[in-house]
Amino acid sequence: MLDEIRLGRSRSRSELVERTGLGRAIVARRVQELIDRGLLSEGDVGPSTGGRPPRQLAFCADAGHVLVADLGATSIDVAVTGLDGRILGHHDEPARIEDGPERALERVDALFDSLLRTTRDIPGRLWGIGIGVPGPVEFDSGRPISPPIMPGWDGYPIRERFTQRYRAPVWVDNDVNLLALGEWRSGVASGHDNVVVVKIGTGIGAGIISDGRLHRGAQGSAGDVGHIQVTDDPDVLCRCGNVGCLEALAGGAALGRAGETAALEGRSARLQAALDLHGSLSAEDVARAASFGDPVAVAQLQAAGRRVGSMLAGIVNFFNPSLIVIGGGVANSPDQLMAAIRETIYRRSLPLATRDLSIQRSSLGALAGVIGASSMVVDQLFARQVIARWIEAGDPASMPDLPLARAG
Amino acid sequence: MLDEIRLGRSRSRSELVERTGLGRAIVARRVQELIDRGLLSEGDVGPSTGGRPPRQLAFCADAGHVLVADLGATSIDVAVTGLDGRILGHHDEPARIEDGPERALERVDALFDSLLRTTRDIPGRLWGIGIGVPGPVEFDSGRPISPPIMPGWDGYPIRERFTQRYRAPVWVDNDVNLLALGEWRSGVASGHDNVVVVKIGTGIGAGIISDGRLHRGAQGSAGDVGHIQVTDDPDVLCRCGNVGCLEALAGGAALGRAGETAALEGRSARLQAALDLHGSLSAEDVARAASFGDPVAVAQLQAAGRRVGSMLAGIVNFFNPSLIVIGGGVANSPDQLMAAIRETIYRRSLPLATRDLSIQRSSLGALAGVIGASSMVVDQLFARQVIARWIEAGDPASMPDLPLARAG
Repeated sequence: MLDEIRLGRSRSRSELVERTGLGRAIVARRVQELIDRGLLSEGDVGPSTGGRPPRQLAFCADAGHVLVADLGATSIDVAVTGLDGRILGHHDEPARIEDGPERALERVDALFDSLLRTTRDIPGRLWGIGIGVPGPVEFDSGRPISPPIMPGWDGYPIRERFTQRYRAPVWVDNDVNLLALGEWRSGVASGHDNVVVVKIGTGIGAGIISDGRLHRGAQGSAGDVGHIQVTDDPDVLCRCGNVGCLEALAGGAALGRAGETAALEGRSARLQAALDLHGSLSAEDVARAASFGDPVAVAQLQAAGRRVGSMLAGIVNFFNPSLIVIGGGVANSPDQLMAAIRETIYRRSLPLATRDLSIQRSSLGALAGVIGASSMVVDQLFARQVIARWIEAGDPASMPDLPLARAG
Repeated sequence: MLDEIRLGRSRSRSELVERTGLGRAIVARRVQELIDRGLLSEGDVGPSTGGRPPRQLAFCADAGHVLVADLGATSIDVAVTGLDGRILGHHDEPARIEDGPERALERVDALFDSLLRTTRDIPGRLWGIGIGVPGPVEFDSGRPISPPIMPGWDGYPIRERFTQRYRAPVWVDNDVNLLALGEWRSGVASGHDNVVVVKIGTGIGAGIISDGRLHRGAQGSAGDVGHIQVTDDPDVLCRCGNVGCLEALAGGAALGRAGETAALEGRSARLQAALDLHGSLSAEDVARAASFGDPVAVAQLQAAGRRVGSMLAGIVNFFNPSLIVIGGGVANSPDQLMAAIRETIYRRSLPLATRDLSIQRSSLGALAGVIGASSMVVDQLFARQVIARWIEAGDPASMPDLPLARAG
């Protein structure tokens, strides 16, 4: 019921009755309990539909705050947010995930401390912590599982570490799921029930919204689309040990390597200049060259876009989303990449599946991860069973301990 | 709450309180209402966990009956079932879907009449009708949408037609979704939350269970995996107009054609004999030849299995199911097909996604479709909002009209 109000699906007691199928008396009693606890407030009188005009209900997003960190391959984003995912304070800086967990997480501690000192008017107490990492996570335990680009992190107890230090509940997920949650709650995917969010970074991954819920799959590894086979060519070797993987052709690392090859072979003066400057080329360097019209870089982006589009065409046939969102560093590149992705999907997918399919860039950019991490925490805190048990207990004083009761 | 009992997740009032998070008083009142309506019965005293031993609750599957028809490309299956999907009477016969809707549905009428006359002890009144067809269906309207192998059926109002004749609510879905529902409720997929059920018939399609619900996708076209590209080879033409589709290499029609070619080229005496006998070859003919050890047929089944496995490896990376079920006529073939599918999936998918992945044959065989159609009808009838509204109305006499109120 709290979710109904919090996510904007119901705005009054009558709408709650209508949408939840619960009786009027039960709804009235529970709303009062939530108001007493400071989680709901009664606002303006809404438009009448005949009879007594309904009182609008609103979620009190400032009942507490959430700390989040989004660890990328080469960056850390931290933020403090309200319970509605609104960012109250934010900081980002370069960092190498391959330096291992101790170093990265000590830096997260320091940045959390600094955020809490410098952000004005942080509401309430700390309700929870959300952490995103660039690799597969066993969601129930909050530990990375054989993450390919995170040496030293396999099985590291991220949740326990933060729980002990902050005495608050902690949830950990991979960065792409959090990107998807962020875009779904506050970005371009808002209002869509079936969404695939693709992040083209060093590797390629996807976050999946299925019938209005984040789909993590049986082992939490859903969305690992970078290793889907997209060519029969036996010469396309992938770091995973297979041949023909999407990531080996269209991931950020592959794009950077292709750019370097073109530079070294003297096929692009612009890429050559960038290589001389940086010593190596990233996907962003190739994207920048393409934005200046460099024909080799443009062709490389188009080729990558066609490969991503070919993979997504299969996903469209299988999953039938109403929206595909493209995010990650390469997505900030000029239109050639998006155009190639779009064209390939529409050509290769079935008409019924693409009739109302929209393909968009990520709208929240670098902030999608922290916004998504905050949503994850609040979703977990307010999961139906938890709130129900609290209401059953009938003891208003028990609420502040609820998050701690679920920690670890 | 009724779903909790009906689907075997709760068996007593205490379990209902535990699992739904509703209060004891509310649960007790609603259970009594459902008992008064003849939907629940109170059975034996269950094992005590301290305190008063709980009374076991059971769903009254004989409160009414359901009529279902599963139309395939070349067959009709009809059945009358209880509200739990148990088959009380069943009949199947050859029929050609390409003869158009009037002829096929008149035959369904005749078979329904005959079932109702000849089946003993059909309980209660008719609560609903479920129809499966071998093509895409817009679920909300119950109409086929551009079905490729169903000439004359595009937009045909199947729901309206049956609603008018039987004065009962009607739901229509594609045969593969119903196969998946059947295996999930009563077959090998029971207890799994993330399942992909693949039907290899004339074409190839999939039904998807995502986090414990049938996933139909944004336009209801999810699972159309037959047209996922599995090869770069420009010579593999598909009837959909694209090149390299799975169906063009591994569908039943493709297998039959490959068998005919081998027979005509004199590469297999057994296939040649079958061709002389039938005038043409089906996938089942090739499977039969393989079961007798014919090396050409075995190689063809293995090649088809590797193609299906290659497509499924991508789905496993994207969706991370805990179970894949292979059904359809070809699935009854010897082990070579299943072995090739399994081997390719395990080789091409990521270790975390396949760690606990099981790959099984369909367990209900030809009956999965009618069992699934019955589940669809009862699921829709007992959808939470509907039952809630009936309870809100507080009028026991209104229940018999509930199905009709939702019809059309």
